Amino acid sequence: MKEYPILAGINHPEQLRSLTSKQLDDLAQEIRDCIINTVSQNGGHLASNLGVVELTLAMHKVFSSPRDKFIWDVGHQCYTHKLLTGRADLFHTIRQQGGLSGFPKRDENPHDIFNTGHASTSISAGMGVLAGDHIQKRTNKVLCVIGDGALTGGQALEALNFAGHLQQDLIVILNDNTMSISRNVGALSSYLSQLALTVSYKRFRTVVDFTISHIPFVGKSLLRWVYRLKRGVKGIVYKENLFTDLGFKYVGPVKGHSIEKLTDVLEHVREIEGPVLLHVLTTKGKGYAHAEGDPSSFHGVGPFAIETGKVDPSLKADPKTVTTTAAFGCAILTEAKKNDKVAAITAAMSSGTGLLPFKEEFPQRFFDVGIAEQHALTFAAGLAASGMQPVVAIYSTFMQRAVDQLIHDIALPGLPVVICMDRSGLVGDDGETHQGIFDMVMFRNIPGLAFLAPQSAREIEMSLEWALGANQPVLIRYPKGATYSCGEVQDTPLEEGKGVLVKKREHSTILLISLGGLLKEVVSASDILDEKGLKCDVYQMRFIRPLNKPALLGLLQNYEQILFVEEGIGSGGMGEEIAMILSEKHSDILYDHIGVPSEFLAQATRDQLIKQCKLDHESIVARVEQIQSELRFSKVVDMVKNDKWSPHNI
Amino acid sequence: MKEYPILAGINHPEQLRSLTSKQLDDLAQEIRDCIINTVSQNGGHLASNLGVVELTLAMHKVFSSPRDKFIWDVGHQCYTHKLLTGRADLFHTIRQQGGLSGFPKRDENPHDIFNTGHASTSISAGMGVLAGDHIQKRTNKVLCVIGDGALTGGQALEALNFAGHLQQDLIVILNDNTMSISRNVGALSSYLSQLALTVSYKRFRTVVDFTISHIPFVGKSLLRWVYRLKRGVKGIVYKENLFTDLGFKYVGPVKGHSIEKLTDVLEHVREIEGPVLLHVLTTKGKGYAHAEGDPSSFHGVGPFAIETGKVDPSLKADPKTVTTTAAFGCAILTEAKKNDKVAAITAAMSSGTGLLPFKEEFPQRFFDVGIAEQHALTFAAGLAASGMQPVVAIYSTFMQRAVDQLIHDIALPGLPVVICMDRSGLVGDDGETHQGIFDMVMFRNIPGLAFLAPQSAREIEMSLEWALGANQPVLIRYPKGATYSCGEVQDTPLEEGKGVLVKKREHSTILLISLGGLLKEVVSASDILDEKGLKCDVYQMRFIRPLNKPALLGLLQNYEQILFVEEGIGSGGMGEEIAMILSEKHSDILYDHIGVPSEFLAQATRDQLIKQCKLDHESIVARVEQIQSELRFSKVVDMVKNDKWSPHNI
Repeated sequence: MKEYPILAGINHPEQLRSLTSKQLDDLAQEIRDCIINTVSQNGGHLASNLGVVELTLAMHKVFSSPRDKFIWDVGHQCYTHKLLTGRADLFHTIRQQGGLSGFPKRDENPHDIFNTGHASTSISAGMGVLAGDHIQKRTNKVLCVIGDGALTGGQALEALNFAGHLQQDLIVILNDNTMSISRNVGALSSYLSQLALTVSYKRFRTVVDFTISHIPFVGKSLLRWVYRLKRGVKGIVYKENLFTDLGFKYVGPVKGHSIEKLTDVLEHVREIEGPVLLHVLTTKGKGYAHAEGDPSSFHGVGPFAIETGKVDPSLKADPKTVTTTAAFGCAILTEAKKNDKVAAITAAMSSGTGLLPFKEEFPQRFFDVGIAEQHALTFAAGLAASGMQPVVAIYSTFMQRAVDQLIHDIALPGLPVVICMDRSGLVGDDGETHQGIFDMVMFRNIPGLAFLAPQSAREIEMSLEWALGANQPVLIRYPKGATYSCGEVQDTPLEEGKGVLVKKREHSTILLISLGGLLKEVVSASDILDEKGLKCDVYQMRFIRPLNKPALLGLLQNYEQILFVEEGIGSGGMGEEIAMILSEKHSDILYDHIGVPSEFLAQATRDQLIKQCKLDHESIVARVEQIQSELRFSKVVDMVKNDKWSPHNI
Repeated sequence: MKEYPILAGINHPEQLRSLTSKQLDDLAQEIRDCIINTVSQNGGHLASNLGVVELTLAMHKVFSSPRDKFIWDVGHQCYTHKLLTGRADLFHTIRQQGGLSGFPKRDENPHDIFNTGHASTSISAGMGVLAGDHIQKRTNKVLCVIGDGALTGGQALEALNFAGHLQQDLIVILNDNTMSISRNVGALSSYLSQLALTVSYKRFRTVVDFTISHIPFVGKSLLRWVYRLKRGVKGIVYKENLFTDLGFKYVGPVKGHSIEKLTDVLEHVREIEGPVLLHVLTTKGKGYAHAEGDPSSFHGVGPFAIETGKVDPSLKADPKTVTTTAAFGCAILTEAKKNDKVAAITAAMSSGTGLLPFKEEFPQRFFDVGIAEQHALTFAAGLAASGMQPVVAIYSTFMQRAVDQLIHDIALPGLPVVICMDRSGLVGDDGETHQGIFDMVMFRNIPGLAFLAPQSAREIEMSLEWALGANQPVLIRYPKGATYSCGEVQDTPLEEGKGVLVKKREHSTILLISLGGLLKEVVSASDILDEKGLKCDVYQMRFIRPLNKPALLGLLQNYEQILFVEEGIGSGGMGEEIAMILSEKHSDILYDHIGVPSEFLAQATRDQLIKQCKLDHESIVARVEQIQSELRFSKVVDMVKNDKWSPHNI
């Protein structure tokens, strides 16, 4: 912390009050440097954090956290908050296994009032906290900081409607950088741009100063009085607009990179009664030229070189590696060229889901609906109802936002919507909020759905092709990161309901089944087991639904021992279904299954998580060996029972 | 159909164009009579349907369904639409098993463009249909009819934002009756009331007429031109307001019970380019005094006497019957009296979830957030984060709307929110959209949740008491309808992780386990089996999580045969978990489980559905007997194998 002398002295945000204006500005620079340095090494959310350095400093100067409560929507702008609340020393561990989370976390620090990670929750949470504090007769303030992107999420709008109704003193700070992850879309966004043009901080300041200077005995209570005198201030400070229509007082827009100005405005805002929306204009990536120039690429980043803003070539992925995201992006392009009914839908993730080439080539059939997963799915259902073949590209974790839309608007009427879930399974650095581990337990029993889990680039292509021909709702899930193919056999044509035996040994008695993105681990395990003399075949599940049970059972019956490995919650997962199939047939195959434990998994690399969940090849080997020893033991017991015991028999 | 001579002649809505103004008014009266008569017999949504008779007639007169596409939000206002689209003959079967659905259904009729049932989906769906039609170069119109209540659902607001952005010619008809099921809440609702006061149809009409009469060569193309000349019309017809801020053109408010006026306005609206919102003021329950006077009670009703508006005494539930809803309403009142941290949250269902007494007694701790399930859960999480003990009362089917909020905002941080899910399991007349059959497969494996399934009134009380003491997130599910108690033993104190053996016979070898709301059927089955000489015990599961597995296993091991009966999707359900527990112990107990099949279940009474799913007592008996015969067969086989066969041994 030597490089950051002022920051090093801050253990609690109240210390900010004793800093001079110059010191605060210097601190802002230190914080910016610290964030850039740390993220350049660990990766993380860069541009969003750089945009709110001054805002966060001003909030902590004017309000008293944790008595006053700050709730960070999504949470990808909380780094300055973490640095000011006694976590600067640990900041270098951010997003690392065992280190600080990249998001606010109640367990981590008392200044983290509410866990976030997904967008659009802060106003609901803030309203709840405030209502609870109110009932318990506390007088603290609650502030929600929400981006203009997150504001388009339905939940945020539900909460605005409710806050305007309840009329408690909630402070919503709209951090308007005209971006979600990429440029923001939607009518609200256009509207905010118009608002941003209409008034300025300067005008606000002048009016308030003028008002106050013309009334004798200026003081805090008077200032409060001035604000209460709505007639005098309304129409000048409070413009009539969409937010005032919803029962908020509106202050702004205010430029967001002067601590002094922001402090001034926040001191006024603190005194306002009822819900208030403070509209702050910030620059995403502020203070780091590369991020300011390309905030979308610098939203969430891996390690990079500070000088150039580029990824260190030694850290770059092998150019031959095809990610699942790229494979999907390529596959949908192929399908769209063949079939002009294919449309693509994303909820503010065109880049993250691999849809940029599609957007480029077929702009008329491409729809970015903003952060609005519920709308995305039902909109897709509408497209299908009009005869189109919509493909929704979404992360598994965000499908949790649109479960009812999947059931009620797609599965129930059987509309042919294809939903491609990227980041299914263990995700990594973003931690517990972003794991894609629930989709299989949640969706595998929804009637009328087909559900596939490809792993190689060719399987992703074939799955999408199959889905678009299936005339029914289809889910396709694939893991984060590189595609993996266990040789050519894995790319044999898709057969409905069936997987593929990607590795076949003569006289093998053990079968390993892989479902999800763990085939590489499973194949490695089988190689090790082979070397140990335990001959293993490997089966890659392609279909979760429909499942050709007779074919599967026919295969399974060739083995003495089966281990099912799935990348998803094990309890309630497909492993249990296979167990049921075997048990219904009164099979005496030694069967076991492993999956992700029913736990929330904190940040770590994907490989670390795979190990932690005992889904890595070594753990798979150990599991097979353990069962083998149980098998030997039970054989011995049987032989003893039947008087056939001899050490040569096993 | 003799009573409805004009209606009887309508097979297709295009026939409306040849009716005179007088005939249309008479038809409206016939439709109203037909709806009142039918609903008084079958039950159904009354007040909402009576509110849109004229609006629906005008829509069908001006537009050409099914070429022009009508999407009915929620769908509880579609009866007039059904009557006009060739379904009048079958209307008497509405909401009956095998009859017409109470909601729009694509399978039922080509005029039903999109299935609905849950609120707030219509604008998303309409946008999708329109975008698809647009890509396919069709020129039809798409109209979404949405109530002011449903408009507060986040998805509707997401969709408004998107429609304003896309700028295609969507027509949104805001059916403003100032109600959702009960009086509407939220800032938007207050705002709409203000809007309703500001302009009137008459003024609109006058201005348009005046404008047109002062321009020579009046004609349709000119009218179109007048509308395009925004400068001339804007500010008069199109007021600047929240909807125009979001990129819509706003027309209205217009009174909603004159077919002539509505026809006139819709003809204008048809010509407007870009998204338009037509604000129509309707009266819920219009034309039936009892419903107009108490629209909330007449939103969804059972059979009633038309004269009095009262339920026929012979059809009234036994006054001694306590419903699960009432039991919950009573239990939360008891808890709230003991503990001033207990708060209650509902999403526009204070009556339906039994919270009216709580609302009355503890208004400060009662929150109706409107139709906004996502917000409801995160708001509750915020309350919990401030130290309150929130209880969310919600129907199982609507929890599908807030899955991510449960995972991300409640389970992950482990906040002590209690969620009471009424209508869990088979629901009945509302059909496939409202079944509460997915909650167990979806939620039982979310880490950190407790999950209970009480059935008697006392169990509901004990479950809530336990939940409020558990300091963790807890789900409680209970079925629709009457509580059921199998005698006093069922009300023995709750033990964490355990259920209760509600029926115990000496030397019984068969155990029936009930989970959910089927205990009555299970007990009846056991009585029948007893009479047949098959001694049966009955175990009532109380906990899904945590589950005291050793205790359960200890119990199970006392039996030769076990049948697990659950009211929820069987595949992936708790029955499979029990199977796994037994299989891991290599138990040779003959185990089977039955649950709801993985299908969407159309409307029928709850009892009919139980039968249809083979979960009724007769089916349970048959299942046990079938397994008994298999058991006998396998015993014989064993004996033959072991040379111990004799007819006296079995």
